[in-house]
Amino acid sequence: MEYGHFDDATREYVITRPDTPLPWLNYLGMDDFFGLCTNTSGGYHFYRDAKLRRITRYRYNSVPLDESGRYLYIKDGDTVWSPAWKPARTELDSWECRHGTGYTKFQAEKDGIRAGLRFFIPRNDPVEIWTLQLENTTSEEKELTLTSYVEFCFYEANNDATNYQRTWSIGEVEIHGSAIYHTTEYRERRSHYTVFYSSELIDGFDTDQFSFLGNQRSVSKPVVVESGKPGNSVASGWNPIGSHSIQIKLAPGEKREITFLLAYIEVPESEKREPSGRLNRKPAEDLICQYDTSEKVESAFSELCSDWIDLLSRFQVETPCPVVNRMGNTWNQVQCMATFNLSRSASLFETGIGRGMGYRDSNQDLLGFVHMVPEKARQRLLDIAATQLSSGLCYHQYQPLTKKGNADIGGEFMDDHLWLLLSTTAYIKETGDFDILSENIGYADQEVKDATLGDHLWTSFHYTLDNLGPNELPLIGHADWNDCLNLNCLSTEPNESFQTAPHRTDGKVAESLMIAGLFLKATRELESLYQKMGDKDRADSVNSAHSKMLQTVEDKGWDGDWYLRAFDANGQPVGSAKNTHGKIYIESQGWLLLGGAGKDNGRARKALDSVHEHLSTDHGCVILDPPYAEYDLNLGEVSSYPPGYKENGGIFCHNNPWIHLALMQEGEGDRAYTYYKSICPAAQPDQETYKSEPYVYSQMIAGKAAKNHGEAKNAWLTGTAAWTLLSIMQGFAGLKPDYDALVLDPCIPSDWPEFKVSRQIRGTCYEIHVKNPDGVCTGIKELSVDGQPVSGNRIPYISNGGTVEVVAIIGDK
Amino acid sequence: MEYGHFDDATREYVITRPDTPLPWLNYLGMDDFFGLCTNTSGGYHFYRDAKLRRITRYRYNSVPLDESGRYLYIKDGDTVWSPAWKPARTELDSWECRHGTGYTKFQAEKDGIRAGLRFFIPRNDPVEIWTLQLENTTSEEKELTLTSYVEFCFYEANNDATNYQRTWSIGEVEIHGSAIYHTTEYRERRSHYTVFYSSELIDGFDTDQFSFLGNQRSVSKPVVVESGKPGNSVASGWNPIGSHSIQIKLAPGEKREITFLLAYIEVPESEKREPSGRLNRKPAEDLICQYDTSEKVESAFSELCSDWIDLLSRFQVETPCPVVNRMGNTWNQVQCMATFNLSRSASLFETGIGRGMGYRDSNQDLLGFVHMVPEKARQRLLDIAATQLSSGLCYHQYQPLTKKGNADIGGEFMDDHLWLLLSTTAYIKETGDFDILSENIGYADQEVKDATLGDHLWTSFHYTLDNLGPNELPLIGHADWNDCLNLNCLSTEPNESFQTAPHRTDGKVAESLMIAGLFLKATRELESLYQKMGDKDRADSVNSAHSKMLQTVEDKGWDGDWYLRAFDANGQPVGSAKNTHGKIYIESQGWLLLGGAGKDNGRARKALDSVHEHLSTDHGCVILDPPYAEYDLNLGEVSSYPPGYKENGGIFCHNNPWIHLALMQEGEGDRAYTYYKSICPAAQPDQETYKSEPYVYSQMIAGKAAKNHGEAKNAWLTGTAAWTLLSIMQGFAGLKPDYDALVLDPCIPSDWPEFKVSRQIRGTCYEIHVKNPDGVCTGIKELSVDGQPVSGNRIPYISNGGTVEVVAIIGDK
Repeated sequence: MEYGHFDDATREYVITRPDTPLPWLNYLGMDDFFGLCTNTSGGYHFYRDAKLRRITRYRYNSVPLDESGRYLYIKDGDTVWSPAWKPARTELDSWECRHGTGYTKFQAEKDGIRAGLRFFIPRNDPVEIWTLQLENTTSEEKELTLTSYVEFCFYEANNDATNYQRTWSIGEVEIHGSAIYHTTEYRERRSHYTVFYSSELIDGFDTDQFSFLGNQRSVSKPVVVESGKPGNSVASGWNPIGSHSIQIKLAPGEKREITFLLAYIEVPESEKREPSGRLNRKPAEDLICQYDTSEKVESAFSELCSDWIDLLSRFQVETPCPVVNRMGNTWNQVQCMATFNLSRSASLFETGIGRGMGYRDSNQDLLGFVHMVPEKARQRLLDIAATQLSSGLCYHQYQPLTKKGNADIGGEFMDDHLWLLLSTTAYIKETGDFDILSENIGYADQEVKDATLGDHLWTSFHYTLDNLGPNELPLIGHADWNDCLNLNCLSTEPNESFQTAPHRTDGKVAESLMIAGLFLKATRELESLYQKMGDKDRADSVNSAHSKMLQTVEDKGWDGDWYLRAFDANGQPVGSAKNTHGKIYIESQGWLLLGGAGKDNGRARKALDSVHEHLSTDHGCVILDPPYAEYDLNLGEVSSYPPGYKENGGIFCHNNPWIHLALMQEGEGDRAYTYYKSICPAAQPDQETYKSEPYVYSQMIAGKAAKNHGEAKNAWLTGTAAWTLLSIMQGFAGLKPDYDALVLDPCIPSDWPEFKVSRQIRGTCYEIHVKNPDGVCTGIKELSVDGQPVSGNRIPYISNGGTVEVVAIIGDK
Repeated sequence: MEYGHFDDATREYVITRPDTPLPWLNYLGMDDFFGLCTNTSGGYHFYRDAKLRRITRYRYNSVPLDESGRYLYIKDGDTVWSPAWKPARTELDSWECRHGTGYTKFQAEKDGIRAGLRFFIPRNDPVEIWTLQLENTTSEEKELTLTSYVEFCFYEANNDATNYQRTWSIGEVEIHGSAIYHTTEYRERRSHYTVFYSSELIDGFDTDQFSFLGNQRSVSKPVVVESGKPGNSVASGWNPIGSHSIQIKLAPGEKREITFLLAYIEVPESEKREPSGRLNRKPAEDLICQYDTSEKVESAFSELCSDWIDLLSRFQVETPCPVVNRMGNTWNQVQCMATFNLSRSASLFETGIGRGMGYRDSNQDLLGFVHMVPEKARQRLLDIAATQLSSGLCYHQYQPLTKKGNADIGGEFMDDHLWLLLSTTAYIKETGDFDILSENIGYADQEVKDATLGDHLWTSFHYTLDNLGPNELPLIGHADWNDCLNLNCLSTEPNESFQTAPHRTDGKVAESLMIAGLFLKATRELESLYQKMGDKDRADSVNSAHSKMLQTVEDKGWDGDWYLRAFDANGQPVGSAKNTHGKIYIESQGWLLLGGAGKDNGRARKALDSVHEHLSTDHGCVILDPPYAEYDLNLGEVSSYPPGYKENGGIFCHNNPWIHLALMQEGEGDRAYTYYKSICPAAQPDQETYKSEPYVYSQMIAGKAAKNHGEAKNAWLTGTAAWTLLSIMQGFAGLKPDYDALVLDPCIPSDWPEFKVSRQIRGTCYEIHVKNPDGVCTGIKELSVDGQPVSGNRIPYISNGGTVEVVAIIGDK
């Protein structure tokens, strides 16, 4: 069953039937105001923080139900329908939904009424704009009743969902003309409110959910909508809503456009009230004025679209593969922006009241958006690093609003600090901004800030060296990247967090080969940075630590056909052929190879062959094999999942591109491409099986041991976004920014005769044409820059603010 | 609009239409297993703890939506309907719901099929039993498809509602015959599962919500139900459900009965698996065997009913007022049992993941159930007291499973400790069990337990004396009984708890007249206990503190026409005619009068007249008047509510019976009765306005300043239950247990010519007939016990295990 397809020309994903296997989501908003919007207009809004400033309410656990959203009803005679299909769910004569870059639009028709509906959030203003276009295609006059609907949230989303004793007694609204003001708690500690406005004069309104729905009725069939008679209800407690009722007469052929605005308004504390004591509506009215004509709205929409085109234009690729093109040029980058904006906070799988920014997550996410928004990446880097303690230990999560580390979860995820080395060096290579290293950001445990970002790098490097285990390998702590590999924690109680369960007290400690690999890679980056800065002592010191770790890994970490994953607290290997379950893990193969292990001794290739033999499937590589059959106290959460799911043998997409990059490092472009497509949502053969959005990556695809092998979960907010984009940008296209040159090192499927790539960096656009006359995967044979031949594969940065033409030929020299 | 009525003969409340203004709830379960059941069979199940052992899932914020529950569908040709109306919501030919004591049943008819459906939870077994009776009243054979439906919860309800990244990958089930086993996490740290069983052989099943509902469909119209074809789906992740599909042929006139069982099963850790490695289903099968015939089920149902009759028979009253009778004899006592079982944890307003047991709540609740379950009350008392610290400070809340104080909220609610004096003395008066005072329960901060309950009483008494303010009145701390009167806290941040917001740091402190009144009452009780125990020194000491406090109250606390509520941290009066808002509060009038203030100086009567003038309405007395118009930092949450709601001028029902009892103390039976009826759900004139359940009290009714004056909220779990029962038992009926006699001190409306009351206490049943030939309210003129005249109004306890006949005449001597 096909539910939709890409429209490459418009950069849209077109959904052709509303009954998708899961709600298929889009994100509206780029700056402070955000709206989640599904393919039936479900979802919710918030300002900056999905926990503390939730604007509209969502009932979670609603995959697959998805029954709260921004809704419109059209009553035409006795028929009630919705342009987005929901909430009315009436069968329509035609329907489609288009998710675009920062907007979603619907086109629907029923009984000769054609409706176009578009939602977007303009740059810089906290408002969602709804544009409804109605057309009467019949030869009769039509009398329609149009009803809008949103359900307001009481701003603090956790309280809103749990504390009914208070929340159901505090709801307040005001109605002025066609503007409905949600003013709950404005009388007291809040100096912000929400306004929901209609550009059309209204014939009535409702703000009280009871009056609107009617007793024991649902949002699919409210009494007000069915009767066509608004209640003009003024909410006083319970659940305030916003609903406009508009009578519309459409002559044959007549068209009409109506705009609705849903906006979040802050008012300075001293100006909350007019001198008369009335609500200060001026800021709302000022905002409404910005969007009170069709021209203004279209201008804002055009600006949004052109901003997106500008963002995406920093990297564009044209390969023989449409999947690579549409993901790389649009949707993978769009997804990276979502992870920049929202980290792991708010999706259909993340409620917005849980996790803040992850130390590990955000450093990796940055690799996927630094080329689009380097200025914002700079601030993010400083924010992240500031949550590290002077010892080197990092808060595993921090709150985006307060930028303080989350004490509940604490630290001791022993990979966290190393990711900072990758993100910082990637940022400097992208921008040339070495000054960032001198920014004084302090440590989280310092009262007076006295540490630069540069100091953090050195501290992070040493933190691993200071925390080695009996095999001289890095300690794993609560867990490394694999949060569920808990080798020191002993959880026996249900409901207990596996990560923060009591640690063993016998002094035994477990070690991680994956962290060892990450250390190898991070030290290579750090050494290169110190070399560039002329700090030879530190460069040597880092290099020597790298060599020693590499030797340790090769001495202790090789299992015969692949690298081990870890040593448990009893010194026994994890991820070894000796084990009954979990014989081979993916992460250590990926990171040890990326860190340079197995390069000269054939082990890299052998490890990759083992991955292919044991882990690869048509839907991606599973994280380990065989899955654990039962819970093992000494392994932790990894063994708690049913076989084939999540960390217990699921296809955890995030780690797949590490293998793609390792394959490409070995010149294996064909296999890398096959693997890439296996996890790529746009390349899935069956949307019914895959279930999730076909345009963005999911965190997980059920593994070969699972009943629903090939079924994806948790789309959008996953580290997969950044890493798969790197597979395209730095892997296939091979564009690796270095400190003084853009390195061109593509690795492609051998049957690509050529590809083009465009990359803006440091103010200059590089237009690169790579030809592959010999049908090979990799290796630059010839290179010319603006017509001048260049030896090697480095394109020196040229700060001319214009365009540089590059032509390259790959093949055996 | 009338939605239902009482059936006094069956002790049931009969709901005659499903579209009630709110879901009207009943509680099933008395021991460990509980089921919430609305009038359309919505609600959920849990074992002991609504947070940690949730069995079925509920989507909160569902007042008024209520769209998850225990559901049945009947497909008859193309028509699908539900005996409980939901989830199908098909219009039925006839329908009624009867909420009884521990059970709920439905009777519905559609197209000639008559369906009876009953839900109950038997004593002592963790299972909900569904009995469905179908009858074909037509002259044609009917072929029906019957489909059952529950949605399983992953046991930890908070995690279930928020952590989809994990929960949607762990769901597991097994199906054996007609038994569906929900086994999520059983592979690891859980040694319990859920089983959902049908007595009828099934034609198919579903356990995967996707397959059952179909894409983007809701529970009102699942694809499996619409098609009549079960998917035989085996859940693997996502949301596991339990659904049986049964084909039924009914000949004309034929009847059929089918039983469904939903049970929670614990298995010893060592017996989780059979030797073969398969799930140990034996405990489930053993339980099923207990209820596998109609006879066994009916026997269990009869036992439940007779247990309830036995419980209720400890107090029964027969007055000229049917409202007093039906509330006092059945529903108010049923509600008190609900507060005993669940405190404030799980209702449609309490999510089960929030508050544990309240120190203040549970002590007061005990006053309403001690006569029904004195043995359980004993343990509860010891549990509560054990959460007090040696200083006298009490944890404001404690967790029912761990019985540990909740450190997040802490203590410093400066009334908490005093309630223990009322509950303990009430328990001893009820039972004569002075031994409880010698139980060594320790203090919460003691490593080795070294304090008896008796020590706790003395500590509590002193804790007030050690915490007096500048006027020698008790300090208020975070708050007293009125959680929202926060005179020391200065909350400026939205989302912040008003109670735990930063306290002022200027050393200024606020004082509470309400605590002073509670202290007066508690010390009277304590003195009387010490007198009874022969401890004259302590009795004198307590009496002297009482006298001193009484003097202070009269010196400092009188405002001219009523008692003040408090002195704020600046020493300014709260609840004074001098204030612009909040001139008069109810709590201090109630407690100071119950404590004996104003008795000999006419102030009591004047205060009650002021209550009548300023606070009373047709729907009860508001908590204060006039409500605060704006938030006042120095008053806290009380001023945060819109006028007329909750603590800001709402009718907070809990405190109304304090006034009733104070009125009756003054002999004002007529006014007390009028006031009683004003908040009594069974006496509300308009169910549409009142909205909430007509058979149990609500926490709050919107006050006169509110737009929806008379609308009730938060039914069931409120301290109102205990106190209104005391209004009937100790007020109107005037039965006040003392240490060595049952005191008879009725105060009734003057137009009651007589009433009868039956009371079991200490193993003997007192059958009392009170006659009122003079048409007065109070005063025992004549008393005879078993035919023997007795002077005064004390009926000595007679331990004959039989019945004692008492006749009393009230009137002026």
